[in-house]
Amino acid sequence: MTDDLTTRAINTIRFLSADAVQQANSGHPGLPMGAAAMAFTLWTHHLRHNPRNPKWPGRDRFILSGGHGSMLLYSLLHLTGYDLSLDELKNFRQWESRTPGHPEYGLTPGVETTTGPLGQGFATGVGMAIAREHLAAKFSPDLFDYYIYGIVTDGDLMEGISSEAASLAGHLQLSHLIYLYDDNRISIDGSTDLAFTEDRAARFAAYGWFVQKVDDGNNIDAVDAAIQAAKIHSQPSLILCRTHIGFGAPHKQDTAKAHGEPLGDDELNAAKQNLGWPLEPRFYIPEDVLAFYRESVERGRKFESEWQSNFDAYKKEHPDPGAELERRLKGELPQGWEAALPAFPADPKGMATRASSGKVLAALSNIIPELVGGSADLTPSNDTKFDGAGDFEKDNLAGRYFHFGVREHAMGAALNGMTLHGGVIPYGGTFLIFSDYMKPAIRIAAISHIPSIFVFTHDSVGLGEDGPTHQPIEHLAALRAVPNLTVIRPADANEVVQAWKFAIANRRGPTVLALTRQAVPTFQPSNFPTVEKGAYVLASFGKRKPDIILMASGSEVSLIYEAAKKLAEEEYSVRVVSFPSWQLFEQQDDEYKEAVLPRRVKRRLAVEAGASLGWERYVGLDGKIIGIDRYGASAPYKTIFEHLGFTVENVIAEAKELLK
Amino acid sequence: MTDDLTTRAINTIRFLSADAVQQANSGHPGLPMGAAAMAFTLWTHHLRHNPRNPKWPGRDRFILSGGHGSMLLYSLLHLTGYDLSLDELKNFRQWESRTPGHPEYGLTPGVETTTGPLGQGFATGVGMAIAREHLAAKFSPDLFDYYIYGIVTDGDLMEGISSEAASLAGHLQLSHLIYLYDDNRISIDGSTDLAFTEDRAARFAAYGWFVQKVDDGNNIDAVDAAIQAAKIHSQPSLILCRTHIGFGAPHKQDTAKAHGEPLGDDELNAAKQNLGWPLEPRFYIPEDVLAFYRESVERGRKFESEWQSNFDAYKKEHPDPGAELERRLKGELPQGWEAALPAFPADPKGMATRASSGKVLAALSNIIPELVGGSADLTPSNDTKFDGAGDFEKDNLAGRYFHFGVREHAMGAALNGMTLHGGVIPYGGTFLIFSDYMKPAIRIAAISHIPSIFVFTHDSVGLGEDGPTHQPIEHLAALRAVPNLTVIRPADANEVVQAWKFAIANRRGPTVLALTRQAVPTFQPSNFPTVEKGAYVLASFGKRKPDIILMASGSEVSLIYEAAKKLAEEEYSVRVVSFPSWQLFEQQDDEYKEAVLPRRVKRRLAVEAGASLGWERYVGLDGKIIGIDRYGASAPYKTIFEHLGFTVENVIAEAKELLK
Repeated sequence: MTDDLTTRAINTIRFLSADAVQQANSGHPGLPMGAAAMAFTLWTHHLRHNPRNPKWPGRDRFILSGGHGSMLLYSLLHLTGYDLSLDELKNFRQWESRTPGHPEYGLTPGVETTTGPLGQGFATGVGMAIAREHLAAKFSPDLFDYYIYGIVTDGDLMEGISSEAASLAGHLQLSHLIYLYDDNRISIDGSTDLAFTEDRAARFAAYGWFVQKVDDGNNIDAVDAAIQAAKIHSQPSLILCRTHIGFGAPHKQDTAKAHGEPLGDDELNAAKQNLGWPLEPRFYIPEDVLAFYRESVERGRKFESEWQSNFDAYKKEHPDPGAELERRLKGELPQGWEAALPAFPADPKGMATRASSGKVLAALSNIIPELVGGSADLTPSNDTKFDGAGDFEKDNLAGRYFHFGVREHAMGAALNGMTLHGGVIPYGGTFLIFSDYMKPAIRIAAISHIPSIFVFTHDSVGLGEDGPTHQPIEHLAALRAVPNLTVIRPADANEVVQAWKFAIANRRGPTVLALTRQAVPTFQPSNFPTVEKGAYVLASFGKRKPDIILMASGSEVSLIYEAAKKLAEEEYSVRVVSFPSWQLFEQQDDEYKEAVLPRRVKRRLAVEAGASLGWERYVGLDGKIIGIDRYGASAPYKTIFEHLGFTVENVIAEAKELLK
Repeated sequence: MTDDLTTRAINTIRFLSADAVQQANSGHPGLPMGAAAMAFTLWTHHLRHNPRNPKWPGRDRFILSGGHGSMLLYSLLHLTGYDLSLDELKNFRQWESRTPGHPEYGLTPGVETTTGPLGQGFATGVGMAIAREHLAAKFSPDLFDYYIYGIVTDGDLMEGISSEAASLAGHLQLSHLIYLYDDNRISIDGSTDLAFTEDRAARFAAYGWFVQKVDDGNNIDAVDAAIQAAKIHSQPSLILCRTHIGFGAPHKQDTAKAHGEPLGDDELNAAKQNLGWPLEPRFYIPEDVLAFYRESVERGRKFESEWQSNFDAYKKEHPDPGAELERRLKGELPQGWEAALPAFPADPKGMATRASSGKVLAALSNIIPELVGGSADLTPSNDTKFDGAGDFEKDNLAGRYFHFGVREHAMGAALNGMTLHGGVIPYGGTFLIFSDYMKPAIRIAAISHIPSIFVFTHDSVGLGEDGPTHQPIEHLAALRAVPNLTVIRPADANEVVQAWKFAIANRRGPTVLALTRQAVPTFQPSNFPTVEKGAYVLASFGKRKPDIILMASGSEVSLIYEAAKKLAEEEYSVRVVSFPSWQLFEQQDDEYKEAVLPRRVKRRLAVEAGASLGWERYVGLDGKIIGIDRYGASAPYKTIFEHLGFTVENVIAEAKELLK
């Protein structure tokens, strides 16, 4: 291609993006204009993708971590032939368009992950690179010989999550991770001199990354050479490209004015004049430019068909691993995996639900080889490691267990990245209190409808001596309020089994398991599908129409069960409802809900060792809640439970108040 | 002192700590045993503190960022003469002791900040160092010539919040911040080789820190020399001290076994034998060791009295600043500051509550010179900067405005640190969605009862085009569930005034202000104290006993107000309740609550552009909620509101359903 075509191809990205922002009267023109040349270089010289099959497993991944520059990505997707029409670009940031303000996974073909909250894309890419290493080591380096590319911004590098993820990536020496840093030195407040003057190159070198600098991010030969060099280095790569936000805009380039608002008609026209671009029509794409970009379609078909041949040959040569790999890449579970789920006999002493969770994982680990997981440095506490997992480390990339370090936020995003990558079913553990440290990543999973699994142990003041700083109070309520997140707090070992069954089968969104540190009794196993209904009648004492309904989740279920037995001795009719998941209960039909919580029974008592907020939904204004609306305490857990009213006696007393 | 006394003084710390953990049968002996020598050096050679007046403003601050090693701090506090008896140490981790599992501010004298959730202490110290620089620049370097010291751990350095805070500290070249890194190479999962192999020294040098290494953390001369060197460098300092977790324990030293559990009687005894310590009694403190540590009391008295003389001289020489400083250090507000609060005339067009918030800040900035604030790189969006604030930068440390960068988590902790330091009233702004990124720091403020102020704008889908990744849904519910956190979502400019009035006057806990991006009408100003009551009757139409109560917060109040007017035209009696704060409403007496929400009125409709979770508390099972239990959308905000049912018509329709 000629230099002129190149220049026009780059300017097409710039002005498609700036025009869309102008038309929407909202958005960020600066990033696409500044990063257009480096994106062009990556997408036309390197990226192996198939616009007509965005889900092809052998593709390179591209992540725009600075999701506010979404028009850069939408322009590239349209130009290279994805199913994203020019009308969609003209509908940027409009109701039900496929071009929302920030890229959303599942909505727009070719968007590999939802970005916008800064740092998430950066860390999610690390998860993708982890999954790639794992599958390459497990099956075939050739089949997984692709790269995770990203464009990352000042804001991404300032966020702590990126630091965590970068440290982890360096530790693991992830070899196929290449990030271009759009080093434009402008953030919303103004120059990065105001807040961000660290030596970024030295910092990433300290993490163990291969670091290069490109003095002029518009120099496509230099960007190209740096990407080439990055590919042959078996370390994660950061390429610092000095760019200019709003490149070409005569008054706004290199200023925060180009960041978060349209250029305005005058400045937009002036930029077009400046770069020799026709003022009209808006959304102008020269024919030869489009033809050039659309070569990606044919190239993509070839990439995929070559890969498919390799895959076919692999399957022929290695039929068993080949079949397993094919199944895993399709996201199908092994036939009959549920048969491996254990059943626990009734046991008044029981065990902690973190412990039964560990047993379930052990039972599933053989039959589901794609089950991989880890912990943010709480492995012995979270019970997340199964025998034979093997540590995933740079010299053991086939290992199935991840030591994420004390990096909850990066763990959350890495789980998302692995989930998005496919071929693995990842879970990650920490204490429920530290769900706070990774909440933005949990939300990305939920909004993206991806099935990351979060294992949160030590789920109440029942953890005891560690005290208030480690005792979750508001966390169940907070997580329950997240749309499309299923929170399950199982009451005993058999509910844990069902919770895991749900989490693994659920491919439509993330699941949180909230598990105890302390032992809880195991109830008589039920043949009824209980957890997946969200709430169910665990036991009934007395008449068919109960005088009172006691409901609880997790460790408090045994409490209401014991209380109900005693109330029954006093001739009360009591229904005991185990309530492991609000979200799942809400999905049931009215008939089922009415069967569990009949409207005519107004006396209702909910018991949960956490914030009471929200339980009114089930007990109403006439009911009562034994919850914890204060901070916990440092003491042996039985002492804490006693002082905070989590005793059989207090449940009986509160129930009798209601029964008066 | 003799070498022997030194050794025994250090071993006293080791074994007081290990004995307490053993007695509690819970806790972390490894850190205190490994870090005893460096802590000894810092506390006896450097730390200028007064055990008998832990609040003396001129003291050095000490932060144990690895709060799990709490017994190290409790031992030091007891030994140097704070009001913390040996019985308290023996009651480690017991109900209502002052020695909980992790150090809690406000509970134990000498604990400067609540730690345990890793990274919080590190970043909080950065905030203290910021406040120190500011006051030194504003008033007198001599009066604020003290240091912020900390002991930080592997886990602290792995957490993203520390990276953010370290980058900020390096950028600002905070001169009096000195952290000793307990480089013991062991975390809960095992060796740090499993997950944490970055070049920590190079990383901190890249942030602009002065970095030193001490090869043997038990070498007190080397530690001493490094602290000396750190003091004369005008940069933040990190001293990497190679230590040995569980030092002295023959089988558990340098293993994760020394981390999170008692040594066990045998190993504890073996460690004592190993280090030449008597096996009995437990909690043994040699008399001469105690006498030596208790010299801190007399030294502390002198430190304080010298400082007080300096302060008296300063006040004499500079009466006005002196009086201001004295007032600020006492935490008293200027007399008559409320008179500066603006009042906004009724205005159907109104303005965004972020804009009225900006006007309130401008109005208060002169009369409250201790009001300082900033934003996590969203200054123009948050409206957090007032005229004449001046940027706080290394060459302008008297500036009152902080550019925190895209570092919400560090901002949250830095606000806490400034608040704890005293002399300033800090606030920080970001979008409500990004409260997720800083939630752990918000929680630390709430659990510590400290009055950090969090300004969260763009508080609903009303932010429009940025779309679902930026639109808070569950966030109000999540924050409302946090004990001791006051969340206020004002409906108009005058509620904003009162919200700020509350936030500034409230010294018992943190306040969140949730503010709109979009304009809302200004209602007729009221003389009644409204916001501080949490909810109040904004308007009544028709009969005294309403047919229905409409309630809402923030931008939805004008919606129910308009709907009520129209319903009144149809002869319905309607009460309009503005509900800016659940927490404040819950604090009212039953009479007030009943007056606002009379029990006899069962028809209740709540309207809020966020998760419905929790509103059942006020509408009951018979009421209705117009909320948002899905993700938002990218579009102009009026379009979104229309599609999601936030229209006068829909409020009327839902109200009529209830009225049927």
